[in-house]
Amino acid sequence: MSKVVDIHTHIYPPSYIRLLRSRQTVPYIRTIDASDRLVILPSEDTNASTSIGRPIGPEYYDISHKLKFMDVHNIDISILSLANPWLDFLPSDEAAKTAREVNDDIDKLCGERNGRLYAFGALPLSASVEEVCAEVERLKELKWMRGVVMGTGGIGKGLDDERLDKVWGILEETGQTVFLHPHYGLPSEVWGEKEYGHVLPLALGFPLETTIAISRMYLAGVFDRYPRLQVLLAHSGGTIPFLAGRLESCIEHDAHLQKEGAAPRKSIWDVLKRNILLDAVVYSEFGVKTAVQVSGGDRVLFGTDNPFFPPLAGDDGAVPDEWKSVTTNVAALQNAFGTLDGLTEKILGGNAVRIFNLA
Amino acid sequence: MSKVVDIHTHIYPPSYIRLLRSRQTVPYIRTIDASDRLVILPSEDTNASTSIGRPIGPEYYDISHKLKFMDVHNIDISILSLANPWLDFLPSDEAAKTAREVNDDIDKLCGERNGRLYAFGALPLSASVEEVCAEVERLKELKWMRGVVMGTGGIGKGLDDERLDKVWGILEETGQTVFLHPHYGLPSEVWGEKEYGHVLPLALGFPLETTIAISRMYLAGVFDRYPRLQVLLAHSGGTIPFLAGRLESCIEHDAHLQKEGAAPRKSIWDVLKRNILLDAVVYSEFGVKTAVQVSGGDRVLFGTDNPFFPPLAGDDGAVPDEWKSVTTNVAALQNAFGTLDGLTEKILGGNAVRIFNLA
Repeated sequence: MSKVVDIHTHIYPPSYIRLLRSRQTVPYIRTIDASDRLVILPSEDTNASTSIGRPIGPEYYDISHKLKFMDVHNIDISILSLANPWLDFLPSDEAAKTAREVNDDIDKLCGERNGRLYAFGALPLSASVEEVCAEVERLKELKWMRGVVMGTGGIGKGLDDERLDKVWGILEETGQTVFLHPHYGLPSEVWGEKEYGHVLPLALGFPLETTIAISRMYLAGVFDRYPRLQVLLAHSGGTIPFLAGRLESCIEHDAHLQKEGAAPRKSIWDVLKRNILLDAVVYSEFGVKTAVQVSGGDRVLFGTDNPFFPPLAGDDGAVPDEWKSVTTNVAALQNAFGTLDGLTEKILGGNAVRIFNLA
Repeated sequence: MSKVVDIHTHIYPPSYIRLLRSRQTVPYIRTIDASDRLVILPSEDTNASTSIGRPIGPEYYDISHKLKFMDVHNIDISILSLANPWLDFLPSDEAAKTAREVNDDIDKLCGERNGRLYAFGALPLSASVEEVCAEVERLKELKWMRGVVMGTGGIGKGLDDERLDKVWGILEETGQTVFLHPHYGLPSEVWGEKEYGHVLPLALGFPLETTIAISRMYLAGVFDRYPRLQVLLAHSGGTIPFLAGRLESCIEHDAHLQKEGAAPRKSIWDVLKRNILLDAVVYSEFGVKTAVQVSGGDRVLFGTDNPFFPPLAGDDGAVPDEWKSVTTNVAALQNAFGTLDGLTEKILGGNAVRIFNLA
């Protein structure tokens, strides 16, 4: 039986929590009536006292909560990543130093739980490209780091910005995976005037953001120039597994792109099978089957998105230990594959152990 | 062998072409250097002389081109729909009259090709709800009409607008299907600064718009109130088949929605199997497999999106008769299902003959 590995699990380490507490603008943590509220999106930054942001407790920063969560769900190893919005908002002259502190902090956390915790490092994307590259090189030397986590904004203009080429180059050269994760969503007018809690931005805004980001990266020829670059896409790629055919067809039928010879050389299907890794955080057997069909059973990896999507209290007020957001994804794998070709085991951990060289 | 039916195929009938030619603002047709250009989106309305909009030829309005296209691709029956942006832009006092003219025009076109052409009618959505409902009732009496085509804007505030309830009610009551089709895309800033022809708005903007629209309709409880309403989604639902699990999970984990008892009563999976029909215009075997898994092999229907996505000229300057945008979708069906359970045949036409009662 292979180890169970969670490759999509977030933390705010102590140095990051101190940073959030010291800030007055988004993102920040504010204590209201003795309870901490985390505000990470401008839209959550209302003046409505207790309703700003979301409650934040030790499950966001206390590693013992992560380990308890792992024990409850039989997870052997977690690859931690700083939660959004990472370091994207920092003044450019503070970003590199903060990145080193936060990454050292996380690497130390991992070292204290020998072999159960690894991590993706955060990048100082508001600093210079040289500083970003220097941190990528430095991360390679940190014992528990296995790549980097990155938002879709890149250094301000998205991931199709050619100024990022040096960053892709050094990531490829050092063999570090990019965990690409959404944060910014879509412009709020697309959700209309009615309120459905946070459902639309979370259920749709996040995956649609990821879909657009990876498509722009592909169209810009990043995978032609960096053929060994590995990008792990959050939430099973957003929707790119479902839309890849339409993307391919629209490129083939675009007179302008074809005339200019500006279409990517590699097909999107090649990129899905050679450059993209997909997590299995898609909450349905149909979604995870599609993910496996487009990227292959060796390139899909179990994740939980912890500490987000905690169980709600039941009618009796009790909060269950087991998280439905996790068991749904495990059940999706079992329903999709059962014991077929060992796929469920590979996705639950075997692939991650191999790809990320986990002891 | 069942008939082959194309349920996603557009036309601008003569009365609509006259309307476009008479207009000075988007949408309009302008003749430049003896060639007609169609401008349907504000972003295409540049001053760059010949580059505005797109070339428009008789394939958009001359029914003999449609029939030739059908013959080349062995399509027995087409269910025509007015192409976007339909009648959405009309002044409210002209909309109802124009809708009647355009729909009568299309119904007449169908009648002249006995049995090969049917249609979805267009609605005067900028008129009053009463006028919209009246046109729905009138369409029921037109011999070749089989439902209505509708954009995602509804009567101005999207499809989760409760003012549309009367429209859903009369559509349900008269057993007419809504063919829901995108047009408005996403706000242009999500595409970034680089240009990739029309690829991003077409490949992603369209399906993401559809995904958001059907999700808002679902969250507003439309399918709880109108349990027999049938909605045919363009482009295999945008991405809803892939994202349904995440949508369900986000609803289940939304404390606000759950506390208020504001979540839809029907599950999204029920809606996909009972209220939603999906076209098979998804350009990959993986996409169409997912469509069949979520909505069932009896609810997925072949379409072409003609006259959009025509073949480009080859290196020798010749334009092939056969459209790759069509053959890709036929091959996707054959690769996905072959002769399994007669699925390919059902999707190519059997389902449409049954659902739309095509003689």
